[in-house]
Amino acid sequence: MAIAMIGTWRMAYEGLEKGLEAMKKGQSSGDAVETAITTVEDYPYFKSVGYGGLPNANGLVEMDAAFMDGDTFAVGAVAGISDVKNPVSVARKLSHDHFNSFLVGTGASEYAALNGFERKSMLTERAQKIWAKRKREIETKGLSPYDGHDTVGMVSLDQQGSMSVGTSTSGLFMKKPGRTGDSALVGDGYYCDSEIGGAAATGLGEDIMKGCLCYEIVRLMGTGLSPQAACDQAVYPFVEKLKKRYGKAGEFSLIALNKAGEWGVATNVEFTFAVGDETHPAKVMMANPGENGTTTIEPITQAWMDAYAKRIKAPID
Amino acid sequence: MAIAMIGTWRMAYEGLEKGLEAMKKGQSSGDAVETAITTVEDYPYFKSVGYGGLPNANGLVEMDAAFMDGDTFAVGAVAGISDVKNPVSVARKLSHDHFNSFLVGTGASEYAALNGFERKSMLTERAQKIWAKRKREIETKGLSPYDGHDTVGMVSLDQQGSMSVGTSTSGLFMKKPGRTGDSALVGDGYYCDSEIGGAAATGLGEDIMKGCLCYEIVRLMGTGLSPQAACDQAVYPFVEKLKKRYGKAGEFSLIALNKAGEWGVATNVEFTFAVGDETHPAKVMMANPGENGTTTIEPITQAWMDAYAKRIKAPID
Repeated sequence: MAIAMIGTWRMAYEGLEKGLEAMKKGQSSGDAVETAITTVEDYPYFKSVGYGGLPNANGLVEMDAAFMDGDTFAVGAVAGISDVKNPVSVARKLSHDHFNSFLVGTGASEYAALNGFERKSMLTERAQKIWAKRKREIETKGLSPYDGHDTVGMVSLDQQGSMSVGTSTSGLFMKKPGRTGDSALVGDGYYCDSEIGGAAATGLGEDIMKGCLCYEIVRLMGTGLSPQAACDQAVYPFVEKLKKRYGKAGEFSLIALNKAGEWGVATNVEFTFAVGDETHPAKVMMANPGENGTTTIEPITQAWMDAYAKRIKAPID
Repeated sequence: MAIAMIGTWRMAYEGLEKGLEAMKKGQSSGDAVETAITTVEDYPYFKSVGYGGLPNANGLVEMDAAFMDGDTFAVGAVAGISDVKNPVSVARKLSHDHFNSFLVGTGASEYAALNGFERKSMLTERAQKIWAKRKREIETKGLSPYDGHDTVGMVSLDQQGSMSVGTSTSGLFMKKPGRTGDSALVGDGYYCDSEIGGAAATGLGEDIMKGCLCYEIVRLMGTGLSPQAACDQAVYPFVEKLKKRYGKAGEFSLIALNKAGEWGVATNVEFTFAVGDETHPAKVMMANPGENGTTTIEPITQAWMDAYAKRIKAPID
């Protein structure tokens, strides 16, 4: 059976490479998702996930993460966890429990400590500088504090035909203490059924959750739609509905993978993602909203990749 | 337009009566839901919601609540909140915010305090006694700690045709600190679209969330199914699927109301609920799983009501 994996944003790339490699060697889709996401969590220059993630309004890095096993529907999740090196690993361990598998706040952090997960201060000097700069700009320039919110989400398919999905994020920039979004919420930020496929979301969690979009994408794939058609049909009409009913819609970007290893993406904003399978090495691509509820997808240039690498390490003035 | 309201469990009854009364006077479905649920939260003898709710394994009453406006899809939610008299009111206020509308843990409790919500120690002497007795039984008799988990969920339809849904719970009995279930999760424990209808769940949150059941029920009603058919078709096949794929399924009870004021229920366990509309005063009914994926519904006798009233106030030995 073919292996395949898709992940949100450019930041997914190196982790996704490792996840594909692990599955090529026969490891499970769950191992691949955990390997891939912990790689993103550990990298200090991604400012919206794990180590180096931006802190909340009070200066504390609070993180959300989830894991879902598409064979069994087992779900584990944490919201508002802090001082833990790999939130997605905590979520995955929780998915093995029938009870108490979604923990929030200090209860989640204490569970991680009691269960031997590595404790770590997740605030880097760089993230603290970005936070302080942002705070000044909000005060002096009247900028919105809530401009930025990139979750890493990964969906994987292994040699046995098992699928998994995982997410991890430090959440909305400058969020209030305790704020959580869609990334830990089943059906909203992620969903997976190995007999159909899986989906994950990134964007403004407060709005994504209003549409239960990951469940809906998986459901649509279950009716026979391709992942791309399912993403398009779930996302664009809901964005329009939300504009009409709620008066506005935040940023939405969704990825999906089906049990055949086919993938799809929908987004209402410029959105990069990483994807690969047995025969196609991992690569980064860019999606944009197209015409009439469709998505345009194009390759990323090396110049773009170089500029990105430079940008995420640029000095903070 | 006809008003109508449905709520989970016998405990919904008095609150639902008040909610219907409020809507008869022209108040909104949101006001009705808040009135109804705060009535349940305030009553000290309901041991799974608000004041008098059972504490977690550490002895602290941690609560989850949510509110969704079916006109706009606005959602507010809290998970693991403590020392707050009315969690559903906090959730409803949060639903007015575009950002930071779902708060967990101490962040949620602090938000409530900072925004003038009444602080209250939610642990009653009676709940503490039940907790201590349960703890002894778990140790001496080897009972499962996690036997009990009743959320109050209410769905309402007002004279303007607007619908709302709300939930509130102190969660799984003897839950680990920080544990949350489905009650605060959009699409899992509740969903509402005024152009279709709304749904709410009670039961083992860890399993209900695996099926995104409230979103699915509303979606099915949107295809033209009656609330009863939508409940049956969403719940019973998923319970079977979960048994097959996960190996077991906890207790599930779902309620639904559509925009015409028709209602439905599905459950895999004996389940009471309260329902009423413009012409039918609030009453309590009992649902049970029927044959071939259907639900049997019968009236509650006065003897049952009397026994219930006695039972919830019986001395704790």
